[in-house]
Amino acid sequence: MDAVQQANSGHPGAPMGMADMAQVLWQDFLKYNPANPHWWDRDRFILSNGHASMLLYALLHLTGYPLGMDEIRQFRQLGSRTAGHPERELAIGIETTTGPLGQGLANAVGFALAEKILAAQFNRPELPIVDHYTWALAGDGCMMEGISHEACSLAGTLKLGKLIVLYDNNGISIDGKVRGWFADDTAKRFEAYGWQVQSVDGHDGEAVAQAIRAAKAEPARPSFISCRTIIGWGAPTKAGTAQTHGEPLGAQEVAAAKQQLGWTAPPFEVPGELRSAWNHEAAGRAAEARWQALYARYRAAYPELAPEFERRMRGELPASWLESARAALAAAQAVPGAQATRQSSQASLNVIGPALPELLGGSADLTPSNNTARKDSRTITPDDDAGNYIHYGVREFGMTAAMSGMALHGGLIPYGGTFLTFSDYARNAVRMAALMHQRVILVYTHDSIGLGEDGPTHQPIEQLNSLRLIPNLSLWRPADAVETATAWCAAIEHDSGPTCLVLTRQGLPQLPRSTAALALVRRGGYVLADCQGTPQCVVMATGSEVHVALEAVQRAQAEGRRVRLVSLPCTELFDAQDAAYRESVLPAAVRARVAVEAGTTGLWWRYVGLAGRVIGIDRFGASGKGPELLKKFGFTADNVQRAINEAIAGDVQ
Amino acid sequence: MDAVQQANSGHPGAPMGMADMAQVLWQDFLKYNPANPHWWDRDRFILSNGHASMLLYALLHLTGYPLGMDEIRQFRQLGSRTAGHPERELAIGIETTTGPLGQGLANAVGFALAEKILAAQFNRPELPIVDHYTWALAGDGCMMEGISHEACSLAGTLKLGKLIVLYDNNGISIDGKVRGWFADDTAKRFEAYGWQVQSVDGHDGEAVAQAIRAAKAEPARPSFISCRTIIGWGAPTKAGTAQTHGEPLGAQEVAAAKQQLGWTAPPFEVPGELRSAWNHEAAGRAAEARWQALYARYRAAYPELAPEFERRMRGELPASWLESARAALAAAQAVPGAQATRQSSQASLNVIGPALPELLGGSADLTPSNNTARKDSRTITPDDDAGNYIHYGVREFGMTAAMSGMALHGGLIPYGGTFLTFSDYARNAVRMAALMHQRVILVYTHDSIGLGEDGPTHQPIEQLNSLRLIPNLSLWRPADAVETATAWCAAIEHDSGPTCLVLTRQGLPQLPRSTAALALVRRGGYVLADCQGTPQCVVMATGSEVHVALEAVQRAQAEGRRVRLVSLPCTELFDAQDAAYRESVLPAAVRARVAVEAGTTGLWWRYVGLAGRVIGIDRFGASGKGPELLKKFGFTADNVQRAINEAIAGDVQ
Repeated sequence: MDAVQQANSGHPGAPMGMADMAQVLWQDFLKYNPANPHWWDRDRFILSNGHASMLLYALLHLTGYPLGMDEIRQFRQLGSRTAGHPERELAIGIETTTGPLGQGLANAVGFALAEKILAAQFNRPELPIVDHYTWALAGDGCMMEGISHEACSLAGTLKLGKLIVLYDNNGISIDGKVRGWFADDTAKRFEAYGWQVQSVDGHDGEAVAQAIRAAKAEPARPSFISCRTIIGWGAPTKAGTAQTHGEPLGAQEVAAAKQQLGWTAPPFEVPGELRSAWNHEAAGRAAEARWQALYARYRAAYPELAPEFERRMRGELPASWLESARAALAAAQAVPGAQATRQSSQASLNVIGPALPELLGGSADLTPSNNTARKDSRTITPDDDAGNYIHYGVREFGMTAAMSGMALHGGLIPYGGTFLTFSDYARNAVRMAALMHQRVILVYTHDSIGLGEDGPTHQPIEQLNSLRLIPNLSLWRPADAVETATAWCAAIEHDSGPTCLVLTRQGLPQLPRSTAALALVRRGGYVLADCQGTPQCVVMATGSEVHVALEAVQRAQAEGRRVRLVSLPCTELFDAQDAAYRESVLPAAVRARVAVEAGTTGLWWRYVGLAGRVIGIDRFGASGKGPELLKKFGFTADNVQRAINEAIAGDVQ
Repeated sequence: MDAVQQANSGHPGAPMGMADMAQVLWQDFLKYNPANPHWWDRDRFILSNGHASMLLYALLHLTGYPLGMDEIRQFRQLGSRTAGHPERELAIGIETTTGPLGQGLANAVGFALAEKILAAQFNRPELPIVDHYTWALAGDGCMMEGISHEACSLAGTLKLGKLIVLYDNNGISIDGKVRGWFADDTAKRFEAYGWQVQSVDGHDGEAVAQAIRAAKAEPARPSFISCRTIIGWGAPTKAGTAQTHGEPLGAQEVAAAKQQLGWTAPPFEVPGELRSAWNHEAAGRAAEARWQALYARYRAAYPELAPEFERRMRGELPASWLESARAALAAAQAVPGAQATRQSSQASLNVIGPALPELLGGSADLTPSNNTARKDSRTITPDDDAGNYIHYGVREFGMTAAMSGMALHGGLIPYGGTFLTFSDYARNAVRMAALMHQRVILVYTHDSIGLGEDGPTHQPIEQLNSLRLIPNLSLWRPADAVETATAWCAAIEHDSGPTCLVLTRQGLPQLPRSTAALALVRRGGYVLADCQGTPQCVVMATGSEVHVALEAVQRAQAEGRRVRLVSLPCTELFDAQDAAYRESVLPAAVRARVAVEAGTTGLWWRYVGLAGRVIGIDRFGASGKGPELLKKFGFTADNVQRAINEAIAGDVQ
């Protein structure tokens, strides 16, 4: 109450309503050590209704995490660690960034799945070194969001028995009492997902504790504990109203609440005895010490497995990685003829996968189309967790947010596929992976109108550029097998953000490339075909349009024009190169510029300038054969050559 | 089978598996007149699993819609009307474009909601002129998608008793048998939503018919009929396998299937007696004639209401509209001081709403934040359909797709609100509204880091530009009350695509504007403040950055520089102006250009060129006070003035 009041901004209702549940969980059940928020076998706690951030900050502060009262006083202020919504910062115990509703729940499914998979891979008889629970608090908003269906249906199917969700069933959302727009029997819904379901009074600590004990006792089903609560509990006149959701209570109501609760300490002061009762440092140290003893026995018994586990949890690539990467590139160079880049991608996976056990594959029910299965893929089923491939079902959003959860958990590098167009369904989860700097690899196939007959609903147009707009995201659109292998290696090595691999359905020829050019692919943009002297025109292209542009450039060169072709498989990476390199590829003096990409033209003006030409597609596609569509929309060597000639002519004028 | 085989592309499995269900529905229950696909009181049929398009084309062809066998032969070919996925074309009976899974189901919820609302508004005792059912076929993919939860939970809550969903429960999706990734008790799940639920053998026509009769007999609950089917039914070796989903059966299997089914006619030939049995023209004419007789009685009894109903169904604005629009603009001009554009938006709604009964408001549980309620708003509740405002709950995706369904139904102009960031959740539904050219108005508030303390999860960065990338979508980001009123009027009048109204949380000053400038706002971009002679520099800005830019321009002018300020509230509309107008606003000769917008810089290079400057934000925001954030990220008059000076200096060099 005091922090929200001081900030004059925030959400007091949910923290007050969930305080009782949280107290039971954090005092009696949650396994954590405030002195070491990185402890690998800690329980994971996710606040899916992230607007209740003040509850989390209070819990972290009171239990002994390094989050001082000075930070609590700075709630929601610029530069503080107590942001409006929790921002992942493991050093103070925040596991994941939440706020966009439902996504924390899907992250939690990913956390629990990661635990189950790693347990299957690393635990040994009597030595369960991976053995922790994933807890999520979630509100009515989370339950209304579609992603809660996707994630919780999957969790039930995969029998994530160590996932326990406490539902803050307060019946209030921003517009008021939810019964007018949310009349579900949510308990029944979760039973339909195969969960263990219990309903309790969320303000009755013993009832909550008993439900948690029953949840922990259930090994095969995730647990859903519906806690009936009163939002803003303790506020004498505002409790139970939507008003407490997103507004400070006001000084008067705060004072009255404190009086009613018998709280006499000044704001931001916690009486010593309460502070001692809450402090979890000793209990946390003891808990971790027990695990360390177990782990010491494990290390002694399995001297080869333990370092591998440590490597995995630290997120380091294996010593063999560079060799794998080299092998993938060599295999790509040896591809004799045309190949769809989705197939090139699968070929790369077949090379790098077997030596990279953390690489966890999957697809949102497009495995045969995304080519995401590799020869060493083994499906994770409800009863067999020792695999490395997940059939996520038709759940793009849930898949993507769960992948972030797995990456956040540690020990796994998740990749997952869908069609590029349906990245739209998952878009905010892609954004969240970027915001949290997570190594999540998104395999997006069927990347243009070139996919053909499925038509405009399935043909991406704006998606290439709209994904590039997301900060801290790398998008690769490789032009052939070599660029695809390079993109995969870059994605694996890029450990501070998500990577999108954008791949074709249709076959693409292998491009001729000098050894020097080969080494430059990793810079995101490079000269693929050059001319003698200063170019009269620079053509740039990506993916399936590079070979079309190459043909046009070769023809123009044959006609005596000095034209350069630049392949730009990853514009973000190219933009991050030093100015000298960028100038060496795209000389400022060359104003006649043409860009070619089977997507919206929007972002290309940055590279070609007002005088440039962009061959793109700014309307929806059509159903028809891929080659006919590409021709119809101008992705032909003839059209590119025409643009080259116009650009040179325009520059001379 | 033959059409897919001939195209060598497509999805035979679902059409064959659903043929039995479809036959029952289209022969014995569906109310339609093939000779008049526009009949207002027809039942609406939505194929949510749109990949089964060949089933729909076959039904339309056989029952007598103007879709000839020549079109069936051209299945999936460029220029045909039989695209890979059904594309809305009412002239041949296709109600909505489907393919992206789950969205047809959400469209159907919108259709059913529109029917219920219009019935409440227009029906009179004994004269139910609006009285039709909405039918949807949906598959396992639809059921896995999160949007099915959002839409169907809302449908249950709102008691859409005339919505009937037939679930093609074939247990197969692309990756194989769904039980490994989709183990829901879907019947129980729909019971939890408050639906009537029945389960039948989908190949038992009488059982399907009986279930449909029971569904029609249930007035208060939407109905869910789970039909157990075999995908690819009739294919002797491939039925029941994922292989039939998305690949032609092969000539041999087709021949064997025909033999097993006793089908002897050549491909694309329908024996005369079967054709007669299927033909629905006479029955359809009779059905519509009965309604026309009813409607004639209605028109006689309610001579004022009938023309209003006709106007509404034709999508024409009322005669009073221009007066409303003028009044809204006048009210906006009279706003004396600073106002958030979300408040300006509400003020406009208060003026135009009462005289525009088709304007159906709503919000995804952010009514008090989006300011979407107007003074004449009346909430639609489960038991009162005679309102004009829907609390959609926290369901952005479901809301948006349902809004498309309502627009497609006709008679309503839906608008709905959420935060701009959470447009991400609904992104593919926004795209579908654009693809279908539907008048759907999306009210997106909290449009920049200026929203403040809620932090980066809630602060849009890339959304402005990523929405602009969607073809056929208009995005307005007004700078003050006048531009907001103009944007609302443009949105109402724009009947061939969706409009996004992007609005601030924070207050903005009212801008000085000449009468000439006022008239030009509707062009999407105009000169707001000009200089004498040819400008040395043109500054362009949108929304909350216009007043900042204005201050900078005024200071630069005071220092003797010739600087012009252009406000660009709707870049799509500005781009659509003739070249002369665009040149009059942004003269090609002026190369010193500065753009200012609190979003990604990406699309602005098109307007400023390689030599230009863009003041934007290409990283995620932060939690803090809005004014502090805007300052921290450079949205200040000082910074704009610096850019003006640099641009002019750079141009002189």
